[in-house]
Amino acid sequence: MDPTAHVPSLADIENAAARIAPLAQVTPVLRSASLDALAGCSLHFKCEHLQRIGAFKFRGAANAVFSLSDEDAARGVVTQSSGNHGAAVALACRLRGIPATVVVPRTAPAIKLAAIRDFGARVVLCEHDQASRDAATAEVLRETGGALVHPFNDARVIAGQATATLELLRQAPGLDTVVAPVSGGGLLSGTALAAHAQDPGIRVFGAEPEGARDAHDSLAGGTRIVGRRAETVCDGLRAELGTLTFAILREHAAGVLLVDDAEVVAAMRLVWERLKQAIEPSAAVTLAAVLRYPERFAGRRVGLILSGGNVDLDALPFARAA
Amino acid sequence: MDPTAHVPSLADIENAAARIAPLAQVTPVLRSASLDALAGCSLHFKCEHLQRIGAFKFRGAANAVFSLSDEDAARGVVTQSSGNHGAAVALACRLRGIPATVVVPRTAPAIKLAAIRDFGARVVLCEHDQASRDAATAEVLRETGGALVHPFNDARVIAGQATATLELLRQAPGLDTVVAPVSGGGLLSGTALAAHAQDPGIRVFGAEPEGARDAHDSLAGGTRIVGRRAETVCDGLRAELGTLTFAILREHAAGVLLVDDAEVVAAMRLVWERLKQAIEPSAAVTLAAVLRYPERFAGRRVGLILSGGNVDLDALPFARAA
Repeated sequence: MDPTAHVPSLADIENAAARIAPLAQVTPVLRSASLDALAGCSLHFKCEHLQRIGAFKFRGAANAVFSLSDEDAARGVVTQSSGNHGAAVALACRLRGIPATVVVPRTAPAIKLAAIRDFGARVVLCEHDQASRDAATAEVLRETGGALVHPFNDARVIAGQATATLELLRQAPGLDTVVAPVSGGGLLSGTALAAHAQDPGIRVFGAEPEGARDAHDSLAGGTRIVGRRAETVCDGLRAELGTLTFAILREHAAGVLLVDDAEVVAAMRLVWERLKQAIEPSAAVTLAAVLRYPERFAGRRVGLILSGGNVDLDALPFARAA
Repeated sequence: MDPTAHVPSLADIENAAARIAPLAQVTPVLRSASLDALAGCSLHFKCEHLQRIGAFKFRGAANAVFSLSDEDAARGVVTQSSGNHGAAVALACRLRGIPATVVVPRTAPAIKLAAIRDFGARVVLCEHDQASRDAATAEVLRETGGALVHPFNDARVIAGQATATLELLRQAPGLDTVVAPVSGGGLLSGTALAAHAQDPGIRVFGAEPEGARDAHDSLAGGTRIVGRRAETVCDGLRAELGTLTFAILREHAAGVLLVDDAEVVAAMRLVWERLKQAIEPSAAVTLAAVLRYPERFAGRRVGLILSGGNVDLDALPFARAA
C-alpha cells in the first residue's frame, strides 16, 4: 500500500486508536460558559496541547511508527520537520526502540533542535530551501534504508490524527460542527474522516490564517497551490496541502475559514484568560474562526481542536514585560 | 454555631461537597512525566484554576452562601475582598438569587472591581487600611442585616475549600503528601482536615512566599503574628492566618515550606511550559516548594493544589514583549 495514495477508512482509524492507546494521552475536553456566551454557541475544546510532546502530532507519528513491520522498523524512520512532527517522530521511535533521523534546516531555532535530540533522534542539518531538505532526506533514506514518515501526506499519519476526533465525539456526544486548523491538511483530513464516519451530517471546517491561505484558495479554485510564501504568527500553519490531503478535503471539508493574525492573537488571549490553557497561536485559529463567522455557528454544538501548546513564553504576541 | 470557632468535621466536609456539587466544577488532575523526573517524585496537580471564577475560592463561598437559611439569605451576604473571594461570593449570591455586597479598598485595580460587579454584586469602596475596611463592613452589616462570609476564618468556607482535597484523593488514590499554598489558611486548613479525615498518615505541607512568611513564623513560634507588611509576587498570598485557621494548622500541618519569588516565577513558568496551564503566581508556590526541598518529597506520591489562574497577561513576571 502506498501511504500517500490511500484514504483511511473507519477501520484504519479504529486500528490507529487501538494501536496508540497504550502510548498517547486521552486528552480532556474543556468548556467555558463565558466563551459560549461570547460565541453564541456551545463550544467543546479538545485539548490536544495536553497530548504528549504538547501537540496532536504525536498521534499520527505514533500510528505510523508502530504500523511498521519489525523488519522495516529495525532500519529506522526518517522525516523532515523542525516543529512538532519532528519531536513526535523522535518520541515515537524512542518508545519503539528504533533509530529516528530528523532532517532540519540549519536556520531552525536551537531550542527546537535540542527538543528533537532530547527525544533521542539524530538530527541532520541542511539548507533552508525545500530542494535541499528533499535532497538531504533522500540521502538519509538511501543510506539507512529507513522508512519515511511524512508530516501529513501519509494515510497512517492521517488515521492517527483522526483519533483525536474519534475521542472528541465520544466525550462530547451530539456535536454538529467541528473546526480544526489547516496547514498541510493532515489534522483536518483526519478530523473530517472521523467525523463523517460517525455522521455524514457533521459540518467540518478548516481554520486558516490569511497569511497562509493556500488551503482556502486551493479548495476554492479546485487546484492545489504550491510555492507561495506564508507569513503569519501561526508558526505551525505554514505548510501547503499535499496531494492526498487535498483530495480528502475536496470531498469532506465544508469550507476553510480565513482569519487574520490580530484575530488569532485575540482568540489565543481569550483561551488563556477564560480556559486558563497555554495554547500556541496555531491552535487559536479555530476559536478565531468561530468568532469571526458567527452566522456559521449560531446555536450549534461545536468541537474545536486545540492543536498544540508549544509556545515561546519569552515572545508572547500579547504580553508586555512586567 | 459561631462559624469562626468551629473546626469542620468530615461530615461537614461531605455535606459541603454535596451542597456545592450542582454548582462547582469537578476539576481535573493533571500529570507530567517531565516534571516528575525533575522533581524526583510523582506529582498530581489538582486544577482549581479551572474552578468557576478561576480559583478554589468558589468552593468555600458557595458552601457558605448556600448554608444560610432562607430567612438569613434574603438579607444578603457581605464580605470584604478585592480578589478571588469577592468574585466567588458575588457569583455564589447570584446563583442563589440574593444580594451581595463586597467592601473593596478604592486602591484596588478597576479590572477587579469590574469582575465583582459583573457577577452582580454591589461594591462599597473604602480606604485601604484594615480599620477602614472593617468599619465599612460593619456599617454595611448594620444597614442590611446581612450575613458576613469571611474569606478564610469561617468553618463553612474551610469546609468548602476542603472539598477540593476530598475530590483529589478520590481522583488520585494513594497520595501520601499534599501541598497547598497558605495565606489566610482557609485552603490549607481544609486540605489538612480532608486529608487527615481519610488517612492521618498523609503529610500536609503549606507553601508560602518568604515575603509573606507569617504562617511559617506563627506556626514555628506558637503565636499568631499579625500586622506585618507582605511583599511578594504572589498577590493572592498576602493575608495573615486567622484565629480558627491558626488553631487548625497547629494541629494538622506538617510544616510550612518557604520559597522565594524567583523560585515561584520559575515554577510558574514550568507549569505553563510543561502542563500548558495558565496559573497565577500564588498557585506556583506548591511546585516551587517541592523543587526547593527535594529531600521532603523524594519518591513520594504528592498532590499539589493549583489554586488559581487569574493572572494579568499584560504583566507576566517572565515574559518579554514580542
